[in-house]
Amino acid sequence: MKSNLTDTAKTSGKTYIIWAHPRADSLTAQVVDALKKQAASQKMDVAELDLYRTGFDPSLGTEDEPDWQNPNKIYSEEVRTLFAELADVDNIIVVFPLWWYSMPAILKGYFDRVWNYGLAYGRGQRIPARSIRWISLVGGAQDKFETQSKDAYMNDLLTSMALYGGIEDSKVEYLYNTIGVEEDIQNPGEHHKQLIEQAKKVVVSLAQ
Amino acid sequence: MKSNLTDTAKTSGKTYIIWAHPRADSLTAQVVDALKKQAASQKMDVAELDLYRTGFDPSLGTEDEPDWQNPNKIYSEEVRTLFAELADVDNIIVVFPLWWYSMPAILKGYFDRVWNYGLAYGRGQRIPARSIRWISLVGGAQDKFETQSKDAYMNDLLTSMALYGGIEDSKVEYLYNTIGVEEDIQNPGEHHKQLIEQAKKVVVSLAQ
Repeated sequence: MKSNLTDTAKTSGKTYIIWAHPRADSLTAQVVDALKKQAASQKMDVAELDLYRTGFDPSLGTEDEPDWQNPNKIYSEEVRTLFAELADVDNIIVVFPLWWYSMPAILKGYFDRVWNYGLAYGRGQRIPARSIRWISLVGGAQDKFETQSKDAYMNDLLTSMALYGGIEDSKVEYLYNTIGVEEDIQNPGEHHKQLIEQAKKVVVSLAQ
Repeated sequence: MKSNLTDTAKTSGKTYIIWAHPRADSLTAQVVDALKKQAASQKMDVAELDLYRTGFDPSLGTEDEPDWQNPNKIYSEEVRTLFAELADVDNIIVVFPLWWYSMPAILKGYFDRVWNYGLAYGRGQRIPARSIRWISLVGGAQDKFETQSKDAYMNDLLTSMALYGGIEDSKVEYLYNTIGVEEDIQNPGEHHKQLIEQAKKVVVSLAQ
């Protein structure tokens, strides 16, 4: 009897999902929900950082400014708490809509503040996870995005960030045409379902 | 009698400086101060948006989420006020330290929220300014930055953002080695002075 992919996939440690969208009923949120269910079906432990609902402050203040003379600087409690959440994480998945060809400010601020000097890099420090997956929801069409090389820019940026944090295994997945205008998507509901299926495969691949 | 560059430069309309740094005594702040003085010496009108000191909130909430069906959506008061400040601006100068190969979250949030659909782009709308200059303070060395093509990506990103807002005249200036470690800067004070002089030339060029 042929078993399906989900049943045969084995557990692969703890996955930490960081995500950013102002609406809890957004397509981004639906993707995150599907990722969590998929991970649970693979018996993977999942933790979640919902940056908007936790009220994360993205603006790095002086208390979190790196001191290049002092890698042992004690950062703010919010930063220490969020960095500590990464301690036993095997895989990180970052889910976000692409705004201005890049990540939303609240997510950029997570990296500005939490992936800080002496924690995520510097003096032999690194992010403990062994892999990171980036899932970016793109409003427009794939053709246009790739013709303009925006995917190359984002791939380089995200992979460079991962490497700076000591994570060599970094892959980016784009879910295209979420708005559905540029390719004149006739059935947005069906299209979104397909995008959610595409995202679930990222979790499946983590267990292989 | 030979007059110097500053004396001969003519006024060239209103310049709006948007900048981001948590410390008001940072090198970024010193650059902004020098830009303002240079502009005043050229009899240019200058307005300033100091994102940190005005307490700007970079996280786009539902009230500022674009409604693709409605380009006339009324955004939050903060967004409307800040967009209105651009109404009579000729030149925009954006000044920021490079964090994670990109702009600080508080600055990214300015674009996420204020350069919004129906205001800065869409349905024939655009940013009223005719030029934009980006001045980015880079902690590391120029050689390394360029070898890794990080300048090419930033140039493309920033120019694409400007174009989306209808501004064709966009140029990026990098002030390198602000930390001074990668090129072993022996006299940081002198080096920073040179960077400030480099930045002032951006204002001089606006008047030519």
